[in-house]
Amino acid sequence: MYLARVYVTLKPSVNDPVGRTIRGGLRNLGFGSIISVRSGKYFEIRLDAESGVEAMSAVDGMCDKLLANPVIESYRFELESLGDMPATDIS
Amino acid sequence: MYLARVYVTLKPSVNDPVGRTIRGGLRNLGFGSIISVRSGKYFEIRLDAESGVEAMSAVDGMCDKLLANPVIESYRFELESLGDMPATDIS
Repeated sequence: MYLARVYVTLKPSVNDPVGRTIRGGLRNLGFGSIISVRSGKYFEIRLDAESGVEAMSAVDGMCDKLLANPVIESYRFELESLGDMPATDIS
Repeated sequence: MYLARVYVTLKPSVNDPVGRTIRGGLRNLGFGSIISVRSGKYFEIRLDAESGVEAMSAVDGMCDKLLANPVIESYRFELESLGDMPATDIS
């Protein structure tokens, strides 16, 4: 079993109203030292695969097809092998 | 200037309908090897601080007060010093 940690962020040129709102909220709470906030998404995906290469290719496909919108978002992920742990369904 | 990468995730005992829906979508797309998906939030925060300790304490406060709901979510973050780079406002 493998665990993929996927980070999806807006491309730098894309406006981020959520990030701006959070920045404003944090400043109002007294965090005046804040410069910018960019918001994104984070996924933890557990999957079975024969090898790390196969898992990596699967996660890459998932990001391209569903998790990220390639027009405005970019993604990166880390893969961790969890060995032969029992596949507990926690989602 | 410091860059904090903040990861906010639902606690393991909390239901994650978004994650379940994504898991279903990925299975429908042919990714049958998927076991579970947990969804979360990701933030990139740039802030000024005198020291790493001060920055860490500020980001901890931001998470506690606004970015995460401590009842159902947990958070972790990484801090990176960006030196004296000009503070470009990109959010």
